[in-house]
Amino acid sequence: MNKIETRIIGLIQMACTNDPKQNLQNAIDSIREAAKKGAQIICLPELFLSSYFCQTENPEHFSLAEPIPGPTSNSLAKLAKELETVLIVPLFEKRTEGIYHNSAVVIDADGSLSGTYRKMHIPDDPCFHEKYYFTPGDNGFISFSTRYGKIGVLICWDQWFPEAARLTALTGAQFLFYPTAIGYQESDRAESPHQIAAWETVQKSHAISNGLFVASVNRFGKEDDLTFWGRSFICNPFGNVLQQANENEAEIIIASCSIPEIESTRQNWPFLRDRRVDTYQNLNKLFLDSDE
Amino acid sequence: MNKIETRIIGLIQMACTNDPKQNLQNAIDSIREAAKKGAQIICLPELFLSSYFCQTENPEHFSLAEPIPGPTSNSLAKLAKELETVLIVPLFEKRTEGIYHNSAVVIDADGSLSGTYRKMHIPDDPCFHEKYYFTPGDNGFISFSTRYGKIGVLICWDQWFPEAARLTALTGAQFLFYPTAIGYQESDRAESPHQIAAWETVQKSHAISNGLFVASVNRFGKEDDLTFWGRSFICNPFGNVLQQANENEAEIIIASCSIPEIESTRQNWPFLRDRRVDTYQNLNKLFLDSDE
Repeated sequence: MNKIETRIIGLIQMACTNDPKQNLQNAIDSIREAAKKGAQIICLPELFLSSYFCQTENPEHFSLAEPIPGPTSNSLAKLAKELETVLIVPLFEKRTEGIYHNSAVVIDADGSLSGTYRKMHIPDDPCFHEKYYFTPGDNGFISFSTRYGKIGVLICWDQWFPEAARLTALTGAQFLFYPTAIGYQESDRAESPHQIAAWETVQKSHAISNGLFVASVNRFGKEDDLTFWGRSFICNPFGNVLQQANENEAEIIIASCSIPEIESTRQNWPFLRDRRVDTYQNLNKLFLDSDE
Repeated sequence: MNKIETRIIGLIQMACTNDPKQNLQNAIDSIREAAKKGAQIICLPELFLSSYFCQTENPEHFSLAEPIPGPTSNSLAKLAKELETVLIVPLFEKRTEGIYHNSAVVIDADGSLSGTYRKMHIPDDPCFHEKYYFTPGDNGFISFSTRYGKIGVLICWDQWFPEAARLTALTGAQFLFYPTAIGYQESDRAESPHQIAAWETVQKSHAISNGLFVASVNRFGKEDDLTFWGRSFICNPFGNVLQQANENEAEIIIASCSIPEIESTRQNWPFLRDRRVDTYQNLNKLFLDSDE
């Protein structure tokens, strides 16, 4: 196969501690290892610099936020340039005093910033108090042109919304990355296999419906009441898993993606040809109450 | 569990021959059997009255179409009233000379017609020449109030479009039925396990994303170049399969659906709460070309 027809993705499944410096060093070491294995596009998990602080509402945690560009993106931009890899770096972003986002910056293989995605769908559930910390993104659904292809990024809770995957695909994304921090509460342990299955099913369905590669990278390990379930995976446009990590260990997942599969899959099952865009306007409504 | 809190669904997985009378009789026999097993809402496969005539483009096949109401819906309305079951009856509908639809009529348990869904997304692929026969529906995505709940109906190719599932869910559907005629060409036999997996994944994802029950009913058997793969199934709002048929036999699938699961699932994973309806307007576009 011609070199230009494949792209190699690397996902860094890691545990995250309370020490941002240690987490960054772990990430850098893993990025180097992934690059050594040939990875051209490398993605870290959501909020990898810290433990998942959203389990409680505590104003002191805002001090974890940093601007983009800022110290972490500058440091990893140098690494991207050195290794000639594209990096997807999720960060707790301080946009200004009082506006914080759950973001991911895409760094091109020359070290330049391709752009920043700001999480659009923000959860708020027991142990996931994200609405307290993060203003929902106002830049919409976007993909970023990089040396190794057009990259869409969505973050964690976004993964449950087919609208988000579709809109990102329509911007021309070849890859859809989901940096994630998902786990189960202790009280849901028995239910967790179903939760994990649903999480995999929904993300594979985005690959299938949109005919693109999906790469989801989660942290692992127990933090207070949450057990993050790992299971990071990469699937092709047919929804077939190319590589998947286990539930409970640090792993670097590498998969070679055959770019022409995007076109052959879309030609074979031409969903994008047949969307009824004349009839979707009610997707802008929360609910279609019968009295309207 | 209180009786009113469960609804029993029956799916009729059948083979279809060239003889509409025989197919109708088979359907009636199976509906009686499903009702005897307690089914309250019973769904037949797409275009169950005939072999899958869309494998070729032949104007003689238009003679298979009938109006709604018409002979088949009248006949099955009597049966619905007798058995006190809701019936979902897919028909090749003649709306007027020159306008034909791939439709499904919903018959309430008192024999009245609740309404007709006309397939919105029409495929056209080798062996599936549906754009020749069927005008795309102009009634949009709807659900029907019946004695046993609010029923959304989508047909076959619609199943690949998350927009269709979402819009139907937003009309208040508790159940999403997919009467289907899907199979693989002989040349794709080796690929068929992947096709079947993708088909199941995407439909389960609609249950999960929307928090409702999904019931998909397919025909089985070989017709010319196509092998229809059966595998009819019912899954809960978490995407867990409650019952599923085999690939290659006539089966009546019965599942009891716990209605409160809709609310508990949606409270537990509140996706409908968090849709960014302020940012979905581009779903009305086919593609977001970079020069726009």
